[in-house]
Amino acid sequence: MTMNEEKDMKIVNQEEPVVPRTNSEKEAVTNRLKRIEGQVRGLQKMVDEGRYCVDVLVQISAVKAALDKVGYQMLERHAKMCVTNAVKQGNGEEYMEELMKVINQYSK
Amino acid sequence: MTMNEEKDMKIVNQEEPVVPRTNSEKEAVTNRLKRIEGQVRGLQKMVDEGRYCVDVLVQISAVKAALDKVGYQMLERHAKMCVTNAVKQGNGEEYMEELMKVINQYSK
Amino acid sequence: MTMNEEKDMKIVNQEEPVVPRTNSEKEAVTNRLKRIEGQVRGLQKMVDEGRYCVDVLVQISAVKAALDKVGYQMLERHAKMCVTNAVKQGNGEEYMEELMKVINQYSK
Amino acid sequence: MTMNEEKDMKIVNQEEPVVPRTNSEKEAVTNRLKRIEGQVRGLQKMVDEGRYCVDVLVQISAVKAALDKVGYQMLERHAKMCVTNAVKQGNGEEYMEELMKVINQYSK
Repeated sequence: MTMNEEKDMKIVNQEEPVVPRTNSEKEAVTNRLKRIEGQVRGLQKMVDEGRYCVDVLVQISAVKAALDKVGYQMLERHAKMCVTNAVKQGNGEEYMEELMKVINQYSK
Repeated sequence: MTMNEEKDMKIVNQEEPVVPRTNSEKEAVTNRLKRIEGQVRGLQKMVDEGRYCVDVLVQISAVKAALDKVGYQMLERHAKMCVTNAVKQGNGEEYMEELMKVINQYSK
Repeated sequence: MTMNEEKDMKIVNQEEPVVPRTNSEKEAVTNRLKRIEGQVRGLQKMVDEGRYCVDVLVQISAVKAALDKVGYQMLERHAKMCVTNAVKQGNGEEYMEELMKVINQYSK
Repeated sequence: MTMNEEKDMKIVNQEEPVVPRTNSEKEAVTNRLKRIEGQVRGLQKMVDEGRYCVDVLVQISAVKAALDKVGYQMLERHAKMCVTNAVKQGNGEEYMEELMKVINQYSK
Protein backbone atom coordinates (compact mmCIF):
# COMPACT_ATOMS: atom_id res chain seq x y z
CA MET A 1 0.00 0.00 0.00
CA THR A 2 1.62 3.24 -1.05
CA MET A 3 1.89 6.36 1.12
CA ASN A 4 -0.66 8.02 -1.18
CA GLU A 5 -3.14 5.23 -0.57
CA GLU A 6 -2.67 5.76 3.17
CA LYS A 7 -3.19 9.51 2.88
CA ASP A 8 -6.16 8.83 0.62
CA MET A 9 -8.09 7.13 3.39
CA LYS A 10 -7.72 9.73 6.17
CA ILE A 11 -9.95 12.80 5.76
CA VAL A 12 -11.13 13.82 9.19
CA ASN A 13 -8.70 15.72 11.40
CA GLN A 14 -9.24 13.41 14.37
CA GLU A 15 -6.65 11.93 16.75
CA GLU A 16 -8.99 9.85 18.94
CA PRO A 17 -12.20 7.93 18.33
CA VAL A 18 -15.33 10.13 18.49
CA VAL A 19 -16.54 7.57 21.04
CA PRO A 20 -13.43 6.44 23.01
CA ARG A 21 -12.88 2.67 23.41
CA THR A 22 -13.47 1.21 26.88
CA ASN A 23 -10.60 -0.67 28.53
CA SER A 24 -12.29 -4.00 27.88
CA GLU A 25 -12.69 -3.08 24.20
CA LYS A 26 -9.00 -2.18 24.06
CA GLU A 27 -8.04 -5.43 25.75
CA ALA A 28 -10.11 -7.54 23.35
CA VAL A 29 -8.42 -5.96 20.31
CA THR A 30 -4.86 -6.04 21.70
CA ASN A 31 -5.28 -9.71 22.71
CA ARG A 32 -6.26 -10.59 19.14
CA LEU A 33 -3.29 -8.61 17.84
CA LYS A 34 -0.94 -10.42 20.26
CA ARG A 35 -2.15 -13.76 18.91
CA ILE A 36 -1.53 -12.49 15.37
CA GLU A 37 1.96 -11.37 16.41
CA GLY A 38 2.58 -14.92 17.66
CA GLN A 39 1.31 -16.36 14.37
CA VAL A 40 3.74 -14.15 12.43
CA ARG A 41 6.61 -15.41 14.60
CA GLY A 42 5.37 -18.92 13.85
CA LEU A 43 5.66 -18.16 10.12
CA GLN A 44 9.28 -17.13 10.59
CA LYS A 45 9.97 -20.47 12.31
CA MET A 46 8.33 -22.41 9.47
CA VAL A 47 10.50 -20.64 6.90
CA ASP A 48 13.64 -21.19 9.02
CA GLU A 49 12.82 -24.89 9.31
CA GLY A 50 12.42 -25.11 5.52
CA ARG A 51 8.79 -26.09 5.63
CA TYR A 52 6.86 -26.88 2.39
CA CYS A 53 5.61 -23.74 0.63
CA VAL A 54 1.91 -24.66 0.75
CA ASP A 55 2.09 -25.20 4.53
CA VAL A 56 3.49 -21.69 4.90
CA LEU A 57 0.92 -20.27 2.46
CA VAL A 58 -1.91 -21.88 4.46
CA GLN A 59 -0.62 -20.11 7.59
CA ILE A 60 -0.21 -16.77 5.81
CA SER A 61 -3.85 -17.11 4.74
CA ALA A 62 -4.85 -17.78 8.36
CA VAL A 63 -3.00 -14.65 9.58
CA LYS A 64 -4.71 -12.58 6.88
CA ALA A 65 -8.11 -13.93 7.95
CA ALA A 66 -7.37 -13.02 11.59
CA LEU A 67 -6.29 -9.51 10.55
CA ASP A 68 -9.41 -9.14 8.41
CA LYS A 69 -11.50 -9.96 11.47
CA VAL A 70 -9.78 -7.31 13.60
CA GLY A 71 -10.15 -4.80 10.79
CA TYR A 72 -13.81 -5.55 10.20
CA GLN A 73 -14.68 -5.31 13.90
CA MET A 74 -12.90 -1.97 14.15
CA LEU A 75 -14.64 -0.72 10.99
CA GLU A 76 -18.02 -1.85 12.32
CA ARG A 77 -17.50 -0.11 15.67
CA HIS A 78 -16.31 3.03 13.90
CA ALA A 79 -19.39 3.10 11.65
CA LYS A 80 -21.91 2.30 14.39
CA MET A 81 -20.48 4.67 16.98
CA CYS A 82 -18.14 7.36 15.65
CA VAL A 83 -19.77 7.95 12.25
CA THR A 84 -23.32 7.61 13.62
CA ASN A 85 -22.57 10.12 16.43
CA ALA A 86 -21.01 12.56 13.99
CA VAL A 87 -24.11 12.34 11.73
CA LYS A 88 -26.39 12.92 14.73
CA GLN A 89 -24.35 16.00 15.70
CA GLY A 90 -24.82 17.34 12.17
CA ASN A 91 -21.24 16.99 10.88
CA GLY A 92 -21.44 13.48 9.49
CA GLU A 93 -20.55 14.29 5.88
CA GLU A 94 -16.77 14.19 6.33
CA TYR A 95 -16.97 11.02 8.44
CA MET A 96 -19.19 9.21 5.92
CA GLU A 97 -16.87 10.28 3.07
CA GLU A 98 -13.90 8.92 5.04
CA LEU A 99 -15.80 5.69 5.87
CA MET A 100 -16.37 5.08 2.16
CA LYS A 101 -12.68 5.60 1.35
CA VAL A 102 -11.72 3.05 4.02
CA ILE A 103 -14.31 0.61 2.66
CA ASN A 104 -12.99 1.08 -0.86
CA GLN A 105 -9.44 0.31 0.31
CA TYR A 106 -10.61 -2.75 2.29
CA SER A 107 -12.50 -4.27 -0.61
CA LYS A 108 -9.40 -4.30 -2.81
CA MET B 1 -10.30 -19.40 7.89
CA THR B 2 -11.74 -22.66 9.19
CA MET B 3 -9.73 -25.83 9.75
CA ASN B 4 -11.55 -27.34 6.74
CA GLU B 5 -10.41 -24.52 4.50
CA GLU B 6 -6.83 -25.14 5.67
CA LYS B 7 -7.11 -28.88 4.99
CA ASP B 8 -8.74 -28.05 1.67
CA MET B 9 -5.60 -26.37 0.35
CA LYS B 10 -3.02 -29.06 1.15
CA ILE B 11 -3.07 -32.06 -1.23
CA VAL B 12 0.49 -33.14 -1.77
CA ASN B 13 2.15 -35.21 0.96
CA GLN B 14 5.22 -32.99 1.10
CA GLU B 15 7.10 -31.67 4.15
CA GLU B 16 9.74 -29.59 2.36
CA PRO B 17 9.83 -27.55 -0.83
CA VAL B 18 10.53 -29.65 -3.96
CA VAL B 19 13.33 -27.14 -4.55
CA PRO B 20 14.69 -26.18 -1.08
CA ARG B 21 15.07 -22.45 -0.32
CA THR B 22 18.62 -21.09 -0.17
CA ASN B 23 19.74 -19.35 3.02
CA SER B 24 19.52 -15.96 1.37
CA GLU B 25 15.96 -16.74 0.22
CA LYS B 26 15.08 -17.74 3.78
CA GLU B 27 16.64 -14.59 5.16
CA ALA B 28 14.76 -12.35 2.75
CA VAL B 29 11.40 -13.87 3.76
CA THR B 30 12.09 -13.94 7.53
CA ASN B 31 13.26 -10.29 7.43
CA ARG B 32 9.96 -9.27 5.84
CA LEU B 33 8.06 -11.29 8.42
CA LYS B 34 10.04 -9.64 11.25
CA ARG B 35 9.04 -6.22 9.93
CA ILE B 36 5.41 -7.37 9.81
CA GLU B 37 5.74 -8.63 13.39
CA GLY B 38 6.93 -5.15 14.37
CA GLN B 39 4.00 -3.56 12.53
CA VAL B 40 1.57 -5.77 14.46
CA ARG B 41 3.18 -4.66 17.73
CA GLY B 42 2.79 -1.10 16.49
CA LEU B 43 -0.94 -1.73 16.03
CA GLN B 44 -1.22 -2.88 19.64
CA LYS B 45 0.43 0.37 20.76
CA MET B 46 -1.97 2.46 18.66
CA VAL B 47 -4.97 0.72 20.25
CA ASP B 48 -3.48 1.10 23.76
CA GLU B 49 -2.92 4.80 23.13
CA GLY B 50 -6.56 5.20 22.02
CA ARG B 51 -5.73 6.27 18.53
CA TYR B 52 -8.50 7.24 16.02
CA CYS B 53 -10.08 4.20 14.36
CA VAL B 54 -9.21 5.22 10.79
CA ASP B 55 -5.52 5.61 11.69
CA VAL B 56 -5.55 2.04 13.04
CA LEU B 57 -7.49 0.80 10.00
CA VAL B 58 -4.94 2.40 7.66
CA GLN B 59 -2.16 0.49 9.47
CA ILE B 60 -4.10 -2.80 9.41
CA SER B 61 -4.43 -2.31 5.64
CA ALA B 62 -0.66 -1.74 5.39
CA VAL B 63 0.09 -4.97 7.33
CA LYS B 64 -2.30 -6.90 5.06
CA ALA B 65 -0.55 -5.47 1.99
CA ALA B 66 2.84 -6.53 3.38
CA LEU B 67 1.52 -10.04 4.11
CA ASP B 68 0.01 -10.24 0.63
CA LYS B 69 3.44 -9.47 -0.81
CA VAL B 70 5.15 -12.23 1.19
CA GLY B 71 2.37 -14.63 0.20
CA TYR B 72 2.53 -13.73 -3.47
CA GLN B 73 6.32 -14.09 -3.63
CA MET B 74 6.13 -17.50 -1.95
CA LEU B 75 3.32 -18.57 -4.31
CA GLU B 76 5.30 -17.39 -7.34
CA ARG B 77 8.44 -19.26 -6.25
CA HIS B 78 6.40 -22.37 -5.53
CA ALA B 79 4.78 -22.25 -9.00
CA LYS B 80 7.97 -21.49 -10.91
CA MET B 81 10.18 -23.98 -9.08
CA CYS B 82 8.37 -26.69 -7.16
CA VAL B 83 5.31 -27.09 -9.44
CA THR B 84 7.35 -26.70 -12.64
CA ASN B 85 9.90 -29.32 -11.46
CA ALA B 86 7.13 -31.74 -10.50
CA VAL B 87 5.52 -31.32 -13.96
CA LYS B 88 8.87 -31.92 -15.65
CA GLN B 89 9.37 -35.11 -13.60
CA GLY B 90 5.97 -36.31 -14.76
CA ASN B 91 4.02 -36.05 -11.47
CA GLY B 92 2.79 -32.47 -11.81
CA GLU B 93 -0.94 -33.20 -11.66
CA GLU B 94 -1.23 -33.23 -7.86
CA TYR B 95 0.96 -30.15 -7.52
CA MET B 96 -1.05 -28.17 -10.10
CA GLU B 97 -4.31 -29.23 -8.43
CA GLU B 98 -2.92 -28.03 -5.09
CA LEU B 99 -1.66 -24.77 -6.65
CA MET B 100 -5.16 -24.01 -7.91
CA LYS B 101 -6.68 -24.62 -4.46
CA VAL B 102 -4.18 -22.20 -2.91
CA ILE B 103 -4.95 -19.63 -5.63
CA ASN B 104 -8.68 -20.02 -5.03
CA GLN B 105 -8.19 -19.39 -1.29
CA TYR B 106 -5.93 -16.39 -1.93
CA SER B 107 -8.37 -14.69 -4.28
CA LYS B 108 -11.12 -14.67 -1.66
CA MET C 1 -22.96 -16.59 -3.44
CA THR C 2 -25.45 -18.83 -1.64
CA MET C 3 -29.08 -17.90 -0.95
CA ASN C 4 -28.17 -17.62 2.75
CA GLU C 5 -25.46 -15.07 1.96
CA GLU C 6 -28.05 -13.07 0.01
CA LYS C 7 -30.56 -13.22 2.88
CA ASP C 8 -27.74 -12.36 5.27
CA MET C 9 -27.22 -8.94 3.72
CA LYS C 10 -30.80 -7.65 3.71
CA ILE C 11 -32.08 -6.51 7.13
CA VAL C 12 -34.25 -3.47 6.57
CA ASN C 13 -37.79 -4.04 5.32
CA GLN C 14 -37.45 -1.51 2.51
CA GLU C 15 -38.59 -1.78 -1.12
CA GLU C 16 -37.31 1.58 -2.38
CA PRO C 17 -34.35 3.80 -1.59
CA VAL C 18 -34.92 6.07 1.43
CA VAL C 19 -33.91 8.86 -0.95
CA PRO C 20 -35.28 7.89 -4.40
CA ARG C 21 -32.86 8.06 -7.36
CA THR C 22 -33.40 10.88 -9.86
CA ASN C 23 -33.94 9.95 -13.51
CA SER C 24 -30.45 11.13 -14.42
CA GLU C 25 -29.00 8.96 -11.62
CA LYS C 26 -30.99 5.99 -12.94
CA GLU C 27 -29.80 6.65 -16.48
CA ALA C 28 -26.15 6.86 -15.45
CA VAL C 29 -26.33 3.47 -13.69
CA THR C 30 -28.33 1.70 -16.42
CA ASN C 31 -25.97 3.00 -19.12
CA ARG C 32 -23.01 1.49 -17.24
CA LEU C 33 -24.91 -1.77 -16.87
CA LYS C 34 -25.72 -1.82 -20.60
CA ARG C 35 -22.01 -1.47 -21.38
CA ILE C 36 -21.29 -4.35 -19.00
CA GLU C 37 -24.00 -6.41 -20.71
CA GLY C 38 -22.21 -5.74 -24.02
CA GLN C 39 -18.87 -6.77 -22.50
CA VAL C 40 -20.39 -10.07 -21.34
CA ARG C 41 -21.68 -10.72 -24.88
CA GLY C 42 -18.16 -9.93 -26.08
CA LEU C 43 -16.83 -12.64 -23.72
CA GLN C 44 -19.20 -15.18 -25.28
CA LYS C 45 -17.87 -14.27 -28.74
CA MET C 46 -14.25 -14.68 -27.57
CA VAL C 47 -15.00 -18.17 -26.23
CA ASP C 48 -16.89 -19.11 -29.42
CA GLU C 49 -13.96 -17.96 -31.53
CA GLY C 50 -11.58 -20.10 -29.44
CA ARG C 51 -9.56 -17.19 -28.17
CA TYR C 52 -6.50 -17.75 -25.89
CA CYS C 53 -7.46 -18.26 -22.25
CA VAL C 54 -5.46 -15.29 -20.90
CA ASP C 55 -7.16 -12.91 -23.36
CA VAL C 56 -10.54 -14.09 -22.05
CA LEU C 57 -9.33 -13.85 -18.43
CA VAL C 58 -8.15 -10.27 -19.01
CA GLN C 59 -11.65 -9.37 -20.24
CA ILE C 60 -13.38 -11.15 -17.35
CA SER C 61 -11.20 -9.07 -15.03
CA ALA C 62 -12.28 -5.89 -16.87
CA VAL C 63 -15.99 -6.79 -16.50
CA LYS C 64 -15.47 -7.45 -12.77
CA ALA C 65 -13.75 -4.06 -12.40
CA ALA C 66 -16.68 -2.34 -14.17
CA LEU C 67 -19.18 -4.15 -11.92
CA ASP C 68 -17.14 -3.22 -8.84
CA LYS C 69 -17.40 0.42 -9.88
CA VAL C 70 -21.18 0.27 -10.25
CA GLY C 71 -21.43 -1.51 -6.90
CA TYR C 72 -19.17 0.94 -5.11
CA GLN C 73 -21.03 3.98 -6.46
CA MET C 74 -24.34 2.48 -5.39
CA LEU C 75 -22.93 1.64 -1.95
CA GLU C 76 -21.52 5.15 -1.57
CA ARG C 77 -24.86 6.79 -2.52
CA HIS C 78 -26.72 4.45 -0.18
CA ALA C 79 -24.40 5.32 2.73
CA LYS C 80 -24.33 9.06 2.11
CA MET C 81 -28.05 9.45 1.48
CA CYS C 82 -30.23 6.60 2.67
CA VAL C 83 -28.23 5.56 5.76
CA THR C 84 -27.39 9.15 6.71
CA ASN C 85 -31.07 10.20 6.43
CA ALA C 86 -32.19 7.21 8.51
CA VAL C 87 -29.65 8.12 11.23
CA LYS C 88 -30.83 11.74 11.22
CA GLN C 89 -34.43 10.55 11.61
CA GLY C 90 -33.39 8.49 14.61
CA ASN C 91 -33.79 4.98 13.15
CA GLY C 92 -30.29 4.55 11.73
CA GLU C 93 -29.30 1.44 13.72
CA GLU C 94 -30.87 -1.10 11.37
CA TYR C 95 -29.56 0.70 8.30
CA MET C 96 -25.99 0.88 9.66
CA GLU C 97 -26.14 -2.80 10.65
CA GLU C 98 -27.29 -3.64 7.12
CA LEU C 99 -24.58 -1.39 5.59
CA MET C 100 -21.90 -3.30 7.48
CA LYS C 101 -23.24 -6.66 6.27
CA VAL C 102 -23.11 -5.43 2.67
CA ILE C 103 -19.57 -4.13 3.22
CA ASN C 104 -18.52 -7.47 4.71
CA GLN C 105 -19.88 -9.32 1.66
CA TYR C 106 -18.22 -6.87 -0.76
CA SER C 107 -14.80 -7.19 0.82
CA LYS C 108 -14.73 -10.95 0.31
CA MET D 1 -8.81 -1.93 -14.61
CA THR D 2 -6.50 0.30 -16.63
CA MET D 3 -5.15 -0.55 -20.11
CA ASN D 4 -1.70 -0.97 -18.51
CA GLU D 5 -3.05 -3.59 -16.11
CA GLU D 6 -4.52 -5.46 -19.08
CA LYS D 7 -1.25 -5.31 -21.00
CA ASP D 8 0.55 -6.34 -17.80
CA MET D 9 -1.17 -9.73 -17.73
CA LYS D 10 -0.54 -10.90 -21.28
CA ILE D 11 3.04 -12.10 -21.91
CA VAL D 12 2.83 -15.06 -24.27
CA ASN D 13 2.29 -14.33 -27.97
CA GLN D 14 -0.59 -16.78 -28.27
CA GLU D 15 -3.93 -16.33 -30.06
CA GLU D 16 -5.50 -19.68 -29.17
CA PRO D 17 -5.35 -22.03 -26.20
CA VAL D 18 -2.34 -24.38 -26.26
CA VAL D 19 -4.93 -27.13 -25.85
CA PRO D 20 -8.05 -25.99 -27.80
CA ARG D 21 -11.42 -26.14 -26.01
CA THR D 22 -13.84 -28.85 -27.12
CA ASN D 23 -17.29 -27.78 -28.32
CA SER D 24 -18.88 -29.02 -25.12
CA GLU D 25 -16.36 -26.99 -23.08
CA LYS D 26 -17.19 -23.93 -25.16
CA GLU D 27 -20.92 -24.51 -24.70
CA ALA D 28 -20.61 -24.85 -20.94
CA VAL D 29 -18.76 -21.52 -20.65
CA THR D 30 -21.00 -19.59 -23.07
CA ASN D 31 -24.14 -20.86 -21.31
CA ARG D 32 -22.83 -19.52 -17.98
CA LEU D 33 -22.00 -16.22 -19.67
CA LYS D 34 -25.50 -16.02 -21.19
CA ARG D 35 -27.01 -16.44 -17.71
CA ILE D 36 -24.72 -13.68 -16.44
CA GLU D 37 -25.83 -11.48 -19.35
CA GLY D 38 -29.44 -12.08 -18.25
CA GLN D 39 -28.56 -11.19 -14.65
CA VAL D 40 -27.03 -7.90 -15.81
CA ARG D 41 -30.23 -7.09 -17.72
CA GLY D 42 -32.12 -7.93 -14.53
CA LEU D 43 -29.99 -5.34 -12.68
CA GLN D 44 -30.97 -2.69 -15.22
CA LYS D 45 -34.65 -3.52 -14.61
CA MET D 46 -34.20 -3.23 -10.82
CA VAL D 47 -32.63 0.21 -11.19
CA ASP D 48 -35.35 1.32 -13.63
CA GLU D 49 -38.03 0.18 -11.18
CA GLY D 50 -36.37 2.17 -8.39
CA ARG D 51 -35.60 -0.83 -6.26
CA TYR D 52 -33.94 -0.45 -2.80
CA CYS D 53 -30.18 -0.05 -3.03
CA VAL D 54 -29.33 -3.13 -0.91
CA ASP D 55 -31.50 -5.36 -3.12
CA VAL D 56 -29.53 -4.15 -6.15
CA LEU D 57 -26.21 -4.55 -4.27
CA VAL D 58 -27.12 -8.14 -3.35
CA GLN D 59 -27.67 -8.88 -7.06
CA ILE D 60 -24.44 -7.16 -8.13
CA SER D 61 -22.65 -9.40 -5.61
CA ALA D 62 -24.35 -12.47 -7.14
CA VAL D 63 -23.23 -11.47 -10.68
CA LYS D 64 -19.66 -10.97 -9.42
CA ALA D 65 -19.72 -14.42 -7.79
CA ALA D 66 -20.94 -15.99 -11.06
CA LEU D 67 -18.19 -14.19 -13.01
CA ASP D 68 -15.60 -15.29 -10.46
CA LYS D 69 -16.67 -18.89 -11.05
CA VAL D 70 -16.29 -18.61 -14.82
CA GLY D 71 -12.91 -16.93 -14.35
CA TYR D 72 -11.66 -19.52 -11.89
CA GLN D 73 -12.71 -22.46 -14.08
CA MET D 74 -10.98 -20.90 -17.08
CA LEU D 75 -7.85 -20.22 -15.00
CA GLU D 76 -7.85 -23.78 -13.68
CA ARG D 77 -8.18 -25.27 -17.18
CA HIS D 78 -5.47 -22.97 -18.48
CA ALA D 79 -3.08 -24.01 -15.68
CA LYS D 80 -3.81 -27.74 -15.87
CA MET D 81 -3.71 -27.98 -19.65
CA CYS D 82 -2.05 -25.10 -21.47
CA VAL D 83 0.62 -24.24 -18.87
CA THR D 84 1.30 -27.88 -18.00
CA ASN D 85 1.70 -28.79 -21.70
CA ALA D 86 4.01 -25.85 -22.29
CA VAL D 87 6.18 -26.92 -19.31
CA LYS D 88 6.30 -30.50 -20.61
CA GLN D 89 7.41 -29.22 -24.03
CA GLY D 90 10.20 -27.31 -22.34
CA ASN D 91 8.96 -23.74 -22.87
CA GLY D 92 6.90 -23.36 -19.73
CA GLU D 93 8.76 -20.38 -18.24
CA GLU D 94 6.84 -17.69 -20.13
CA TYR D 95 3.51 -19.42 -19.51
CA MET D 96 4.17 -19.77 -15.75
CA GLU D 97 5.25 -16.12 -15.56
CA GLU D 98 2.03 -15.12 -17.33
CA LEU D 99 -0.06 -17.40 -15.06
CA MET D 100 1.34 -15.64 -12.00
CA LYS D 101 0.50 -12.20 -13.41
CA VAL D 102 -3.09 -13.31 -14.03
CA ILE D 103 -3.26 -14.74 -10.50
CA ASN D 104 -1.92 -11.49 -9.05
CA GLN D 105 -4.61 -9.50 -10.90
CA TYR D 106 -7.37 -11.91 -9.85
CA SER D 107 -6.46 -11.76 -6.17
CA LYS D 108 -6.88 -7.99 -6.06
